Amino acid sequence: MDFTLPDSLQALRERTAAFIRDEIIPLEADPGRGAHGPTEALRVELNHRARHAGLLAPHVAEEWGGLGLSHLGRAVVFEEAGYSLLGPLALHCAAPDEGNMHLLEVVATPAQKARWLRPLPAAEIRSCFCMTEPHPGAGSDPGLLQTTAERDGEGYVIRGHKWLITGADGAGFAIVMATVPGEGGGPTMFLTDMQVPGIRIGRIIDSIDQSFAGGHAEVFFEGCRVGPDQVLGEVGQGLRYAQVRLAPARLTHCMRWLGAARRAHDIATAHARERHAFGKPIGEHEGVGFMLADNEIDIHMCRLSIWHTAWLLDQGQHGRHESSMAKVFCSEAIFRIADRCVQVLGGLGVTRDTVVEQIFREARAFRIYDGPSEVHRWAIARRALRTETTR
Amino acid sequence: MDFTLPDSLQALRERTAAFIRDEIIPLEADPGRGAHGPTEALRVELNHRARHAGLLAPHVAEEWGGLGLSHLGRAVVFEEAGYSLLGPLALHCAAPDEGNMHLLEVVATPAQKARWLRPLPAAEIRSCFCMTEPHPGAGSDPGLLQTTAERDGEGYVIRGHKWLITGADGAGFAIVMATVPGEGGGPTMFLTDMQVPGIRIGRIIDSIDQSFAGGHAEVFFEGCRVGPDQVLGEVGQGLRYAQVRLAPARLTHCMRWLGAARRAHDIATAHARERHAFGKPIGEHEGVGFMLADNEIDIHMCRLSIWHTAWLLDQGQHGRHESSMAKVFCSEAIFRIADRCVQVLGGLGVTRDTVVEQIFREARAFRIYDGPSEVHRWAIARRALRTETTR
Amino acid sequence: MDFTLPDSLQALRERTAAFIRDEIIPLEADPGRGAHGPTEALRVELNHRARHAGLLAPHVAEEWGGLGLSHLGRAVVFEEAGYSLLGPLALHCAAPDEGNMHLLEVVATPAQKARWLRPLPAAEIRSCFCMTEPHPGAGSDPGLLQTTAERDGEGYVIRGHKWLITGADGAGFAIVMATVPGEGGGPTMFLTDMQVPGIRIGRIIDSIDQSFAGGHAEVFFEGCRVGPDQVLGEVGQGLRYAQVRLAPARLTHCMRWLGAARRAHDIATAHARERHAFGKPIGEHEGVGFMLADNEIDIHMCRLSIWHTAWLLDQGQHGRHESSMAKVFCSEAIFRIADRCVQVLGGLGVTRDTVVEQIFREARAFRIYDGPSEVHRWAIARRALRTETTR
Amino acid sequence: MDFTLPDSLQALRERTAAFIRDEIIPLEADPGRGAHGPTEALRVELNHRARHAGLLAPHVAEEWGGLGLSHLGRAVVFEEAGYSLLGPLALHCAAPDEGNMHLLEVVATPAQKARWLRPLPAAEIRSCFCMTEPHPGAGSDPGLLQTTAERDGEGYVIRGHKWLITGADGAGFAIVMATVPGEGGGPTMFLTDMQVPGIRIGRIIDSIDQSFAGGHAEVFFEGCRVGPDQVLGEVGQGLRYAQVRLAPARLTHCMRWLGAARRAHDIATAHARERHAFGKPIGEHEGVGFMLADNEIDIHMCRLSIWHTAWLLDQGQHGRHESSMAKVFCSEAIFRIADRCVQVLGGLGVTRDTVVEQIFREARAFRIYDGPSEVHRWAIARRALRTETTR
Repeated sequence: MDFTLPDSLQALRERTAAFIRDEIIPLEADPGRGAHGPTEALRVELNHRARHAGLLAPHVAEEWGGLGLSHLGRAVVFEEAGYSLLGPLALHCAAPDEGNMHLLEVVATPAQKARWLRPLPAAEIRSCFCMTEPHPGAGSDPGLLQTTAERDGEGYVIRGHKWLITGADGAGFAIVMATVPGEGGGPTMFLTDMQVPGIRIGRIIDSIDQSFAGGHAEVFFEGCRVGPDQVLGEVGQGLRYAQVRLAPARLTHCMRWLGAARRAHDIATAHARERHAFGKPIGEHEGVGFMLADNEIDIHMCRLSIWHTAWLLDQGQHGRHESSMAKVFCSEAIFRIADRCVQVLGGLGVTRDTVVEQIFREARAFRIYDGPSEVHRWAIARRALRTETTR
Repeated sequence: MDFTLPDSLQALRERTAAFIRDEIIPLEADPGRGAHGPTEALRVELNHRARHAGLLAPHVAEEWGGLGLSHLGRAVVFEEAGYSLLGPLALHCAAPDEGNMHLLEVVATPAQKARWLRPLPAAEIRSCFCMTEPHPGAGSDPGLLQTTAERDGEGYVIRGHKWLITGADGAGFAIVMATVPGEGGGPTMFLTDMQVPGIRIGRIIDSIDQSFAGGHAEVFFEGCRVGPDQVLGEVGQGLRYAQVRLAPARLTHCMRWLGAARRAHDIATAHARERHAFGKPIGEHEGVGFMLADNEIDIHMCRLSIWHTAWLLDQGQHGRHESSMAKVFCSEAIFRIADRCVQVLGGLGVTRDTVVEQIFREARAFRIYDGPSEVHRWAIARRALRTETTR
Repeated sequence: MDFTLPDSLQALRERTAAFIRDEIIPLEADPGRGAHGPTEALRVELNHRARHAGLLAPHVAEEWGGLGLSHLGRAVVFEEAGYSLLGPLALHCAAPDEGNMHLLEVVATPAQKARWLRPLPAAEIRSCFCMTEPHPGAGSDPGLLQTTAERDGEGYVIRGHKWLITGADGAGFAIVMATVPGEGGGPTMFLTDMQVPGIRIGRIIDSIDQSFAGGHAEVFFEGCRVGPDQVLGEVGQGLRYAQVRLAPARLTHCMRWLGAARRAHDIATAHARERHAFGKPIGEHEGVGFMLADNEIDIHMCRLSIWHTAWLLDQGQHGRHESSMAKVFCSEAIFRIADRCVQVLGGLGVTRDTVVEQIFREARAFRIYDGPSEVHRWAIARRALRTETTR
Repeated sequence: MDFTLPDSLQALRERTAAFIRDEIIPLEADPGRGAHGPTEALRVELNHRARHAGLLAPHVAEEWGGLGLSHLGRAVVFEEAGYSLLGPLALHCAAPDEGNMHLLEVVATPAQKARWLRPLPAAEIRSCFCMTEPHPGAGSDPGLLQTTAERDGEGYVIRGHKWLITGADGAGFAIVMATVPGEGGGPTMFLTDMQVPGIRIGRIIDSIDQSFAGGHAEVFFEGCRVGPDQVLGEVGQGLRYAQVRLAPARLTHCMRWLGAARRAHDIATAHARERHAFGKPIGEHEGVGFMLADNEIDIHMCRLSIWHTAWLLDQGQHGRHESSMAKVFCSEAIFRIADRCVQVLGGLGVTRDTVVEQIFREARAFRIYDGPSEVHRWAIARRALRTETTR
């Protein structure tokens, strides 16, 4: 048992923290932070700074241009990146690109990697993951998937309506989940460039959050042709790959937003120290101080659960139970933290004069992304009912 | 003991509900709903419709053009108005105008009423209430008030920096809280037109909510002159009048937002009925159904607490303890409701495709407005410690 | 709309409060308060005092010796009775007798009333309600009922194993739920004296609560014969009568335990006033004061929900939705109150030196009795999903 | 970073688990489990079995007869011991003996160790810790200490009234906190045999919990004489030693009760698997399943926080912030777990037919012991306000 970070990782942590503080937080005042995420120009500048700092795509294998971080390494670095909502974009370790890079590294063929993985870590392009569909299609229940990929000669023709596709607007390519009629075994994943006939971006959907580059778009597949070499992995195995992508992806969400929660807490704590009311700093009123204490506890517990699950993944375990528990605990704890910080700030907290207001909104969305708490609780319960004892 | 609404009030309730449904909800798609509240053009249209429907300023005495509703009557009608976030603006019963009209009715001189109260219920103008100041000025603790009104001849010269002043941009007049140096007894309230020398509107502050006409502005008093006839009530009695205004005002907040919570709940319930996942409507999954049940309970309890306190006020009691309890309970319950509705809607809930997303944000701000829960809990506890038994 | 109590009821409230304070609370030190509820001797003394005070069985019609209180009247008087955990026993308005009297008044034949109802309000006897069975029998799901009443000539022979039967030990008669094989329409209710062949009391089950006379027993029906005149109401209609009994019965639980919660809160508040730590009365520490504030709010809200539902029942409505909401809200709120009071008392709170410790345990059980919160939430959700709008 | 348990510790864990399962749980049916904790006869039998299994006092240095476990080792073994409420007594690692042994190892002189520490790990005797006093004496605020130790020749004469002294009845010796008048620097700790003139045990206080040997007693010091060699450490340093004792002691509370929570969860999970209602096992109803899921999460998080803090202590850090956070989180999480388990069990849960009912009561008391959550939150907040950033 050892909770020590390796020296090299500790150094990288400090370096990332300094980079965020000195290079990224100043850009938070940039007008390019729009309602649907940073503009392309801002994104390019962010990536440029991270590239210069040697921090681009730290989670990707060195072979593909990253730092080859372990899951634990990601836990440490992504938390620091998340201390600014622009940080994960800068390091190109935000959703959905981060999960897509991971999936391609694990599942793609060498030719697919050369074509689609290679330019990603360098931030030459962005990507998207086309799974969610509007009612009555696939949301939490993948069994409702409506998008089809009909066989047509050696290839396939994709038709369907996707929705809430993060980063689709401006993406270079997409991973698309679709059912091949006549094939058993479930949906299939396909790779396709976005700038091809048969793909149409609809509106960018206004939403409570605004930290993702490209926002969340509607995407219409209207007869998009893909060749057999664009099947990712095997036909009918899409749900299995979705698990390959999601278990770590939901954990990296926790990492990044933990950084954001810490930022909110630091702002609230500083305010509680400086702002006086009824004769003393408001932090010395227990009503406020107890909120800070609960933040401290929640931050601490989130980090422990993330580090533990990351370590499990590094041991080669799938960590499905633990990553579900981390998702539920962290998303709810991080929301509680953000909510308390708004309350501590009072009137200031509901304004955009601090970044806490946005962190609060982002944290709310996090409780839905990559499986709402209800779906995870159901899965956790099912496992608990199957095993004989805890521990 | 009787929980029956008078027939006339029940009829007014139905009429208001129909008005909101038929005349106001269709306007929710109007592009005039901006980041800082509806545009002036939209506000005029809303008021026009309410005037035509005979529902304008229903809380104001008939003598001044309203319907002369009791507090209970307001509870019923304001809840219906709140079913659309545009409804209270339409009826001109939103903050801060609603509270200002009430305060003027109770405290102003006949001459002041003729000048400032008369045009308000007719929605010829809007008004604002200039109390809150940025750090280190007055927020929850009025003792920190920095704005001064120095005697100058028979009148006063006001200097200070106000902040988060709802509706200041576009308001016809303001009620201003300032300290007269050399006077004991605390701050004083003043009435002043806004279009006068010495008042400057600063920026409109970006904030989490966006339902108030004019948004929340910074206001700089830079030598604004007021005559002795512009003192509202007596010098040094401002805090007492603030209580006159706030106890009902915080209750009317509860009324309006209860309507909004009911709207969110209706949308979530309809979704839970129609959306299927894992083999049945999601509402039949207990994880979702229990959230709806808790909404039902919270809505029910909010209404009871509001009706009870309104009835107390109608009896001539100050209802301070009960209105504090209602503010804490309702603001927190309404936020819980909105939060659950977002969760029930899933991905849809974090988009602006339904009004639930905005209701959630408004409800968050409500937990701060007119005294955060912490200040009320402190006041409630102090009273509990002073009395011998509950009941 | 009127929240005023009639003068006569207000007078009865004061009289009951004084009776509890002067006659019953002093008996709380009586050694007869055993692990399975008060001894028979203590019960007789309690009833004697209530009879003398003219407060016995106030909920029963005057024709049968009670005060003929409306549901609202019960709300007021039962809350006062509940201020001592011995109070409801004294007034003979505790479960299960109170609900049994109500059920017999509504459903029993004149002959049945003469035999079984008549002696109850006079506290000559106690009664029990034999419904719950151990696993795999009927608990929350009445569909699992195992006890049978086989036809035998004109009568029936009852066989089955009941469990957690409150007050069975020492009861004069029982209402028994059993299925008549070959009859459709569901279970049937039977009336039987307890001192007859074929009924055997098993152990008295140790439990977290201890306020019920007779405790909770196992009851074995081993061929208990009943005549056709012992069918309560109609064959096959038992579940309908259970609703007749349960909707008001669960509300009277709320009434009595609200009184207990108020007692705990008064003790905690007094302690918070007197006990000093870190330089001031602990109640002036917000960490403690906020708990008292939340108690005030919860007590207030419980009372409103009870009064409202009682009024509905007095109007002849079944009030099923409202009584479910009251049960969930009150049982959980009362538990929270008791839990906070323990915390406010600190070390003293976990001892039996105050009655708060017992109130805490009783309140925990209340969240299970007459339908756990989960069953009510499920029913509330089902109704919400069926209706189009709230209000 | 490594979450692996050393093989030897893993083996000890399994051995302890088997011992509890095979040797201790069967004794839970022993009639010697009284209202004030196990009888002396049962305690002797429990210790006998642990001694035979080589598991007695595993936390104590081998030199004194223990297994010399690190803090992490304690975390693992104490959790297994706690799986039965009798387990910690069996291993003699329950409060207050466990903390007393630790304190004596760190602070006592060789002569004191020979006299008072030596017989403890062998379970020849029990001990107690006399700090808490009734109102208006020392509870959470040690500044209120009333007990005095007046100098008398070379020694001292102790006078005072202690309260809630766990295990005092039957203890061989006590550590007593008292103020030496005229000495600055705060209270002083003394060691004294219990069977001496001037010490009188008052009543054993009835309380919500009942797992501690000897219960909680009142102890009167009525002129108890101690020599200069009975001062533990230095005069005036008692509060510092209290910290030496409390930081690990509150963590070992977490360890033991985590085991108890796991036991409750296993019982509830088994019930949820076997008990059917409304057509399926109740665990498959989300209302129940989600409670099990939350238990899984809470158990997991408790263990991580305990292991982390134990590791910190093993590194020689004082871990005050982390042990406060662990105390708050674990005591509240363990209570939530126990509360949910009662609810899952339904009617069965409020009976003593399973040990869950007692675990629930013990967990309630745990939220008070060794500092209520409020005192820890205050300390955590104070530290947060002093530091610049989290992490």
